[in-house]
Amino acid sequence: MKSKKLWGGRFEEAPSSIMVRMGESISYDKTLFAQDVRGSIAHARMLQKIGILSKVELKKMELGLLQVLKEIKANQFEFKIENEDIHMSIESRLTEIIGDLGKKLHTGRSRNDQVSQDVRLYLKDEIILILESFLSLLAVWIRKAESSIDIIFPGYTHLQIAQPIRASHYFLSHFWANVRDFEEFLASFDRADELVLGSGALAGVNYPTDRVFLQKELRLSAINENSIDGVSQRDHILKFLFSVSQFSLHASRFAEEVILFSSLEFSYFRLPDSLTTGSSIMPQKKNPDIAELIRGKAGRVIGGLNHLMVMIKGTPFAYNRDFQEDKIPLFDAVNQVKLVLEGVREMVRELKILEKNTEKSLKQGFATATDLADWLVKRKGLPFRSSHEIVGELVKRCTEKHWTLDTIPKEERKKIHEALVDPEYEEAISLETSCEKKDVRGGTARRRQIEQISKAKQKLNDLTKQYIQRKGKLK
Amino acid sequence: MKSKKLWGGRFEEAPSSIMVRMGESISYDKTLFAQDVRGSIAHARMLQKIGILSKVELKKMELGLLQVLKEIKANQFEFKIENEDIHMSIESRLTEIIGDLGKKLHTGRSRNDQVSQDVRLYLKDEIILILESFLSLLAVWIRKAESSIDIIFPGYTHLQIAQPIRASHYFLSHFWANVRDFEEFLASFDRADELVLGSGALAGVNYPTDRVFLQKELRLSAINENSIDGVSQRDHILKFLFSVSQFSLHASRFAEEVILFSSLEFSYFRLPDSLTTGSSIMPQKKNPDIAELIRGKAGRVIGGLNHLMVMIKGTPFAYNRDFQEDKIPLFDAVNQVKLVLEGVREMVRELKILEKNTEKSLKQGFATATDLADWLVKRKGLPFRSSHEIVGELVKRCTEKHWTLDTIPKEERKKIHEALVDPEYEEAISLETSCEKKDVRGGTARRRQIEQISKAKQKLNDLTKQYIQRKGKLK
Amino acid sequence: MKSKKLWGGRFEEAPSSIMVRMGESISYDKTLFAQDVRGSIAHARMLQKIGILSKVELKKMELGLLQVLKEIKANQFEFKIENEDIHMSIESRLTEIIGDLGKKLHTGRSRNDQVSQDVRLYLKDEIILILESFLSLLAVWIRKAESSIDIIFPGYTHLQIAQPIRASHYFLSHFWANVRDFEEFLASFDRADELVLGSGALAGVNYPTDRVFLQKELRLSAINENSIDGVSQRDHILKFLFSVSQFSLHASRFAEEVILFSSLEFSYFRLPDSLTTGSSIMPQKKNPDIAELIRGKAGRVIGGLNHLMVMIKGTPFAYNRDFQEDKIPLFDAVNQVKLVLEGVREMVRELKILEKNTEKSLKQGFATATDLADWLVKRKGLPFRSSHEIVGELVKRCTEKHWTLDTIPKEERKKIHEALVDPEYEEAISLETSCEKKDVRGGTARRRQIEQISKAKQKLNDLTKQYIQRKGKLK
Amino acid sequence: MKSKKLWGGRFEEAPSSIMVRMGESISYDKTLFAQDVRGSIAHARMLQKIGILSKVELKKMELGLLQVLKEIKANQFEFKIENEDIHMSIESRLTEIIGDLGKKLHTGRSRNDQVSQDVRLYLKDEIILILESFLSLLAVWIRKAESSIDIIFPGYTHLQIAQPIRASHYFLSHFWANVRDFEEFLASFDRADELVLGSGALAGVNYPTDRVFLQKELRLSAINENSIDGVSQRDHILKFLFSVSQFSLHASRFAEEVILFSSLEFSYFRLPDSLTTGSSIMPQKKNPDIAELIRGKAGRVIGGLNHLMVMIKGTPFAYNRDFQEDKIPLFDAVNQVKLVLEGVREMVRELKILEKNTEKSLKQGFATATDLADWLVKRKGLPFRSSHEIVGELVKRCTEKHWTLDTIPKEERKKIHEALVDPEYEEAISLETSCEKKDVRGGTARRRQIEQISKAKQKLNDLTKQYIQRKGKLK
Repeated sequence: MKSKKLWGGRFEEAPSSIMVRMGESISYDKTLFAQDVRGSIAHARMLQKIGILSKVELKKMELGLLQVLKEIKANQFEFKIENEDIHMSIESRLTEIIGDLGKKLHTGRSRNDQVSQDVRLYLKDEIILILESFLSLLAVWIRKAESSIDIIFPGYTHLQIAQPIRASHYFLSHFWANVRDFEEFLASFDRADELVLGSGALAGVNYPTDRVFLQKELRLSAINENSIDGVSQRDHILKFLFSVSQFSLHASRFAEEVILFSSLEFSYFRLPDSLTTGSSIMPQKKNPDIAELIRGKAGRVIGGLNHLMVMIKGTPFAYNRDFQEDKIPLFDAVNQVKLVLEGVREMVRELKILEKNTEKSLKQGFATATDLADWLVKRKGLPFRSSHEIVGELVKRCTEKHWTLDTIPKEERKKIHEALVDPEYEEAISLETSCEKKDVRGGTARRRQIEQISKAKQKLNDLTKQYIQRKGKLK
Repeated sequence: MKSKKLWGGRFEEAPSSIMVRMGESISYDKTLFAQDVRGSIAHARMLQKIGILSKVELKKMELGLLQVLKEIKANQFEFKIENEDIHMSIESRLTEIIGDLGKKLHTGRSRNDQVSQDVRLYLKDEIILILESFLSLLAVWIRKAESSIDIIFPGYTHLQIAQPIRASHYFLSHFWANVRDFEEFLASFDRADELVLGSGALAGVNYPTDRVFLQKELRLSAINENSIDGVSQRDHILKFLFSVSQFSLHASRFAEEVILFSSLEFSYFRLPDSLTTGSSIMPQKKNPDIAELIRGKAGRVIGGLNHLMVMIKGTPFAYNRDFQEDKIPLFDAVNQVKLVLEGVREMVRELKILEKNTEKSLKQGFATATDLADWLVKRKGLPFRSSHEIVGELVKRCTEKHWTLDTIPKEERKKIHEALVDPEYEEAISLETSCEKKDVRGGTARRRQIEQISKAKQKLNDLTKQYIQRKGKLK
Repeated sequence: MKSKKLWGGRFEEAPSSIMVRMGESISYDKTLFAQDVRGSIAHARMLQKIGILSKVELKKMELGLLQVLKEIKANQFEFKIENEDIHMSIESRLTEIIGDLGKKLHTGRSRNDQVSQDVRLYLKDEIILILESFLSLLAVWIRKAESSIDIIFPGYTHLQIAQPIRASHYFLSHFWANVRDFEEFLASFDRADELVLGSGALAGVNYPTDRVFLQKELRLSAINENSIDGVSQRDHILKFLFSVSQFSLHASRFAEEVILFSSLEFSYFRLPDSLTTGSSIMPQKKNPDIAELIRGKAGRVIGGLNHLMVMIKGTPFAYNRDFQEDKIPLFDAVNQVKLVLEGVREMVRELKILEKNTEKSLKQGFATATDLADWLVKRKGLPFRSSHEIVGELVKRCTEKHWTLDTIPKEERKKIHEALVDPEYEEAISLETSCEKKDVRGGTARRRQIEQISKAKQKLNDLTKQYIQRKGKLK
Repeated sequence: MKSKKLWGGRFEEAPSSIMVRMGESISYDKTLFAQDVRGSIAHARMLQKIGILSKVELKKMELGLLQVLKEIKANQFEFKIENEDIHMSIESRLTEIIGDLGKKLHTGRSRNDQVSQDVRLYLKDEIILILESFLSLLAVWIRKAESSIDIIFPGYTHLQIAQPIRASHYFLSHFWANVRDFEEFLASFDRADELVLGSGALAGVNYPTDRVFLQKELRLSAINENSIDGVSQRDHILKFLFSVSQFSLHASRFAEEVILFSSLEFSYFRLPDSLTTGSSIMPQKKNPDIAELIRGKAGRVIGGLNHLMVMIKGTPFAYNRDFQEDKIPLFDAVNQVKLVLEGVREMVRELKILEKNTEKSLKQGFATATDLADWLVKRKGLPFRSSHEIVGELVKRCTEKHWTLDTIPKEERKKIHEALVDPEYEEAISLETSCEKKDVRGGTARRRQIEQISKAKQKLNDLTKQYIQRKGKLK
């Protein structure tokens, strides 16, 4: 039996079963239906402008395409494996609706430039949604910081208590990391915001395609300058997957902290019941599943970035069929990043800090030992090395006897060093004082927190403007 | 509203929307339905054996579970997101069918050991199918080798023609690589072939679970010796994904060769129309899409292995919710490896070698230059270094004048070195002779090919036995 | 024996052997020596400005640090494993030179912010060198394009000949991909161009550190706004490694093309002897080793990006010792990207195109079949579908008889379709004509190439300015 | 200037600088010197056996090679970049020592099969060292288990306290995971234990190489059956890197536990001073750096596996120069796995469990809540669902009032349910009882621990035998 494929002219045999099953992408690239229709309408208008379609033909075609769009949205569209991909599915249905005129839509276009353009439009649409979710997360970090400026929180290095910080400082540290993520997504948007239609299969097209018209119709900021480049490279997807990966790493770290701080042993955070789960057999459990899933999803999106990189490596120019599956990690990453953004935001919004526990740990963890050493240097004139040793001795003594710097008896302190019974000692080991002494830009002193919150708001304001500007570039 | 979850006792609030959407796994882990039912029946029988269920209860439970199985197979089962996963979906439906007795099924079992066992049973089932497909691929390599023993084919290093080989030798090189893949899958089967039920949540169970009975019921070869280990580790999935990755790398290399050798410039292979596609706008194209897709899929499965590794890294014991998504790369890899196996097999079976072209390249590529140098050493007593230089000179002269070693005039040879006009010269540069001189085990001489085919058949025979032995371990 | 470590106060035992061997980083982080000295001098000046050092002390310290620098540069510095890392090595030697004053350098500084700053300075230095090498590569692409505008080259999709393109178009396609790489490196520079000194261990410092002064001294464009963020995150390294990975993927694809096109079967490119190697036993071989190594190095740098991502995943705030090894993939990527840039540039500069071979392939590959089909549509009024089938038939006939579109006899054409004997036929299948018809922006027509080269020069000019602007930000 | 390379015959120009710098591998492959000499001696003996070398020549050659070996070991060997790699470095020095006879060593051998064999010998040598270190780690796990059988330890899921376990059970869970690692390394040994010499460049050799003789000389268990396969594939390295990756994941998880359990908040583990470090500015810190470094190194070796996979993907047969860098991740993984093994072993050996803290957490974490629920089912006949709810209520009440199941007043219990004032209540919530009820194979009951330790010893005994058997296969 002779093949009925569009490209079947020279072919004697129908595709084998494995060819059909391996080659189809309609099971996943239907995700692109809205962008494909939008791109096709713009293309049709351009064809009319350069005289290939009449106004009447264009009208018919637009109506036909809008009907296809409506059918898909209403779940009344039958996707058939013979139509291989979303492009052929839509064109084939269009031809059913408006007859042979439908076939003219493919004039001056190749699936190579078509899919490349569709994915760029899709990225723009989805990144706008992601940025919206981000703005809401960034605002939540700031609100959380504002409400927790007077909570002293343990600062860690090596998961050992290092120094007291303000809780606002902690939350803002995640804010700034997410600001960089936001900026990566903005840059990903800009990378995708480019016209590639008109590249044809790889060399350009045999028609006087008006690319400036297409650019305006599709509201794109630039025209890709080389048709081979336009169909060959996948940098826009790579950059997006990198942005998702960087964010997922930040999220995995915050998730780890939520898991740690929600454990019985830390008990610094309490998540509401609505964000935790119980165990089917252990009635006491209250598991921070969202945080664990978010931590794990870092693997998923990093694996997706890796997938794409391995896939691209070593392929010659221009389009190769390997690239069909670039959409697998892309679509998954889009879904995951949205879930993770929402999950992180809800956790931040809802978590309560249990101050009694943080204070207890700070004291038991000798969080102000450094401050004491610094005080010995500054006020008692000891060399840093000696003060460090004295405080080391004091800590050791406390540990043996289960004392803290607050509770170790004066006489014990005296045994170690005269200076430790100075009246300023209490002040030198105060958590509050410790924070206040970090009075440097970006430091944890109260006024520096207020300064930082103000800068964070400015930044959020600026990012919002950038978002609005990009949103204006959507069709 | 109070939660209705099985684990909801202590919980005041219902799960939030993001908790539900992020936490559910039923959208993908329903794949495990058959294994979950099978495991549950074995568990129920064990409960009866140790006196927790009566015979009548067991009978009811078995019938109920079989009905659930039937409903799922017949697509008459409604999967609900509230039931979170396949285990709760099945238990919940069972309870609808047989009433509160259904809840007793969870006695002495946790979802932690249950899912771990289900995945192991799933791996065993799927690996058997994969091995079957492999046996058929291995047999095809051998048949291809048998039918191509007299075709001389260009051997490459650095994608430069190096030496002539027999085509059988080429095909068998892929056979032996796939043998190692087969062995990896056998070892993956054995890694999964273990009882973990009875591990409970992590510490074992409060019931006199008869693990030897369970082991026999489920036809498992070993009992995991540590309940924490049983629910904590994912080595069986890692090992499987590594096996798939190694195979996918071999497949990507063969795919690259098919792509190269099907190009116009090489024209060594011809694939049938049924395994290629055309272009919607370029009528002359005959694209080796299957090979390209297989090459690209290496990225997909390597990305999946990477996903799992990142996910596991740094998680503390025992079960963590991150692990829920271990099934994402697993299920995908199972699907991909089956497609790739079928795709490779069909390509091997169907490809034709165009001998005129291979011969032409061999001559133009001076494939026997080494043989000529060796002949100068052996028969003319020249030091290897000198003979290498003489042949280098000869090749250079030929290249300048577009001659081959066959067509360069005698007088030209003489100019370079006296020995090159020896009557044995023709013999020394013959492709056939070159092959025949590689008369070492594993070499490309004809009798060595026959020897190798015989060894390949023995190996296939042995692997088939191993497969049958493993298949006997399925329920 | 009591430890002599700086941090040894509370410690009873000396570090074990494995602790020493695993913990040291001096064997690799000595790479940072210049940046560490530079950062230390800036820090010392700041300490003087805020009154912690006297002018005399500062002078001594600066001289001491410069002496250390000189010793290291002259290979007269003994790196000792007891000094663990570059920071302690330099401080320890400084103290030998200027006495106890040397210890004061650590005032208001922690190794956590110090190393984070050093790496940022290092990135700035190295990226400038990388950008310089890039500018030279970009210029070479343009020169190559200018000199090859009249060479018709085969354009590929699926490694099947698709359409003729101008060789300039091909070279420029790599130019534009590398432009994006250049832009990624610029953005990486900007990400690193930030002050983190003053973050202390994580909370800020107990001294009135003047961060604006430090920023100016070190010529940094921004001050990091959160001390926790400053020591916790490694986004600047991630971004750099992503930039290297994206470039390495582009390079791997060009390398693949060089390997293919240097093969005997393609014979489109000839590399000079100086860029190829021979074989120790096969005198005819001329292997494109540089291209192969570059292709393989994509794995190396992608593996490095993966290393860092896995390392970071799931680590809690702030500094964790895991991060010590962030420098392993960083330093390696810096070395590799420099080699690859130079290797690609030399290959582009030196490769010759063998036009006879490209023309032969274009004809044998029916590269203008699409053009013929389009001509049938435009001039003969056939529907595209029919014209596609007619040309498919023609190609099939040619293939059977080893004809090309040029050489197939008129009568044979007539058998297939009347229109194929039209006097315009020759023109319709001309390679030159095919290129000229792609007269769309970014297309392969001659005037479009000239336009594109002009745009490429503008872009290079713009990138050069951006480079100069960044270079002005080095100390 | 004409090249002096061994392969330089046809070459007009010397290699360019970038060719030399990129192409050399001597800077790292010198690691293989011992294996290269060993392989060469075996090869020389074989050449004598088949009559290509005389006995006198062989004697000279052996003495020459041994002298080279001695020079390298004594650091008296000058590695020169012109000699590119270890093979040419040794051959070149040999020729200096014994004259032109040295060149005969390359008869019937190619660098392609030579390097492939060297790496296999190297893997065998190194895996034996790794296995030795493993045996010592496995023994330490068992000793630790034996000494901690009576310590009750908190078992976690989701980092929430789940159930009490015996500390021995915890340590043994790592033992069994490491057993699987050991088995992977054994399988890696077997994969490498194969003769590939005699494969030549790819097709076999033109000499009557006696491969059975070579196999015996080099004590290899198998002969590779296909010369193309012998030089093309890198499965032996992939398998080794996978083994290292799996182990590194296990190690990263134990490291995470050590970090957690050494934190102030958990305080379950105490590491000795010799295995921790202090802070240069925070006198109270005692950082578990080894554990952190081990956790991070998982990224390093997983990145290495990824490197190799990307490098191999899509390369055609047979040897490609990309493969030169397969040794980069291999050598690094060998070094890292040795450090990690030693680090884990020392931590296990030295860590102390602080039982007061583990007990306190167990009680505060309601670790026996499940047991209480089970008791309500078994002794009071309540349905599991109800008992789960009752205990959930009890836990909630305790949490509100800071009680534990031990300390909640009887009257409070009565309010929730009558059954909770039963005299058996104390027994039902006892930690010891909870453990004892997990009296199932692999469970945490005391006698099951003894059983498990006995099985662990048997396993260790068996693995030791396997190790000895493999060690017997070293030369």
